[in-house]
Amino acid sequence: MPNFTAQDPDYAHRVRTSFGRQTFMAHIGAECIRVEPGFCELALDYRADLCQQDGYLHGGVTGALADSAAGYAAYTLMPAGCSVLTVEYKLNLISPATGSRFLARGQVERAGRTITVVLARVVAIQAEGEKEIALMQATMMCLPKSSDLVPD
Amino acid sequence: MPNFTAQDPDYAHRVRTSFGRQTFMAHIGAECIRVEPGFCELALDYRADLCQQDGYLHGGVTGALADSAAGYAAYTLMPAGCSVLTVEYKLNLISPATGSRFLARGQVERAGRTITVVLARVVAIQAEGEKEIALMQATMMCLPKSSDLVPD
Amino acid sequence: MPNFTAQDPDYAHRVRTSFGRQTFMAHIGAECIRVEPGFCELALDYRADLCQQDGYLHGGVTGALADSAAGYAAYTLMPAGCSVLTVEYKLNLISPATGSRFLARGQVERAGRTITVVLARVVAIQAEGEKEIALMQATMMCLPKSSDLVPD
Amino acid sequence: MPNFTAQDPDYAHRVRTSFGRQTFMAHIGAECIRVEPGFCELALDYRADLCQQDGYLHGGVTGALADSAAGYAAYTLMPAGCSVLTVEYKLNLISPATGSRFLARGQVERAGRTITVVLARVVAIQAEGEKEIALMQATMMCLPKSSDLVPD
Repeated sequence: MPNFTAQDPDYAHRVRTSFGRQTFMAHIGAECIRVEPGFCELALDYRADLCQQDGYLHGGVTGALADSAAGYAAYTLMPAGCSVLTVEYKLNLISPATGSRFLARGQVERAGRTITVVLARVVAIQAEGEKEIALMQATMMCLPKSSDLVPD
Repeated sequence: MPNFTAQDPDYAHRVRTSFGRQTFMAHIGAECIRVEPGFCELALDYRADLCQQDGYLHGGVTGALADSAAGYAAYTLMPAGCSVLTVEYKLNLISPATGSRFLARGQVERAGRTITVVLARVVAIQAEGEKEIALMQATMMCLPKSSDLVPD
Repeated sequence: MPNFTAQDPDYAHRVRTSFGRQTFMAHIGAECIRVEPGFCELALDYRADLCQQDGYLHGGVTGALADSAAGYAAYTLMPAGCSVLTVEYKLNLISPATGSRFLARGQVERAGRTITVVLARVVAIQAEGEKEIALMQATMMCLPKSSDLVPD
Repeated sequence: MPNFTAQDPDYAHRVRTSFGRQTFMAHIGAECIRVEPGFCELALDYRADLCQQDGYLHGGVTGALADSAAGYAAYTLMPAGCSVLTVEYKLNLISPATGSRFLARGQVERAGRTITVVLARVVAIQAEGEKEIALMQATMMCLPKSSDLVPD
């Protein structure tokens, strides 16, 4: 796993504050359980109202969780005063999303001044232990000022 | 736009029934507003509890909507009795997700016996009209029996 | 198809000059056959030395062609004096790459100051006419000075 | 790194034979230097005729190398008598492709009966050592008979 140093010592507080403003994460009951330089882990308990047609966690919820984990992993390494924006993400759903709880772990692969590339893995807590259910490769962008959130 | 013929005359009912079982779509208030061979359109009204940290629709919600639209576009062309599974999707967030309402339109690009490739576009209804906010390229899979939802 | 205006009147010459410097495109025999604002089309004749294990055009060659077409489509809309960089691309191989000739068409979906999103389609010329063999969704970046090609 | 067992004891020979039939890999001078269950490593020396407009290795060549490494990593775990097909791949170009030699390492993340998901990393050998230049997330498909290479 790559080893990163955060340039902003207040990075964890900054991530948690921003996460706290994501109404959708609150709406589905997601929590931010770990923040480290280049890394962020979110957790979500299974809920019957977040499912697709067969009772599995909806792939879009899995994607939302992984997107937020990836974005905040990138955000830990950005300077204070900037914003993080998802340019794009690609998600493979690799196993059925069953389980009592889901963890999304974003890990920065490469941090640049403008573009940061992140891998995120989503695992389900099942009777036998952790099972990987999704893999995301995402591109995040650092925007100098929080007032200018347009990707150009 | 490609022209497709559905092999199952009951395709629209089959799509709407499956959509009705997606608890997450109900949870966020999404509706299925149009189903045609190779095409599906979903709609979602803006809600303050579905947002990211700056009050825009959360990218994961945009992705979930596009994923469902893409999956059901593919499902219209599949034979009766099978299931549709998202193998993977890739989403570019191309403009800030502001607006009063969002429409996700999935359009099949290529339908195969096992693999179907779909493009989905998400537009926001803004004061000036429709504005494209996201573009998805997705890979869907046809599973012969609904009881066997594992991708292998 | 979106309608774009090039801000640099010399865009076509600029694209063709840059394409002429891509030694790999010359190496495989690709030609740049059409350049318009937001659009670029490349062509490649089938060659037995560009194949995968079953005699089809190698997916990597298909990807390279689509990547260049997408990058130059984006480049047509960028100001003079900047460089274009591929941030990432995603390619679905949707039909076997057989045929006498291949055309890759890049079409800008959304042009931003920094990030441009492009769709590229690769078609094969077969006995029955054109057949789409691949679909790419790519993210391109504008770099202010050609001397600074690092993505950060 | 996941630990896999090959079901076909002859997997390495099968991979190397197939790789030997990829005329494009021979054309650019790529070699297959390591094959293990769930893993494949390819190597390519820098050549001035495989470049983009600024003298870096063309992103399409990087993609081709990663695609083949990913495909053969998946192929090691498939049963004898089947074929491997690239459904799609997504490539982030994370650093300029400079260096004397390039290594593409495909590592299976999840192997299914039909669908296998692979991560591939491309590194450049530079004066300071290995530098990661690209990251790929790919979806591979197992086709029962080599005579039926169409993805449906």
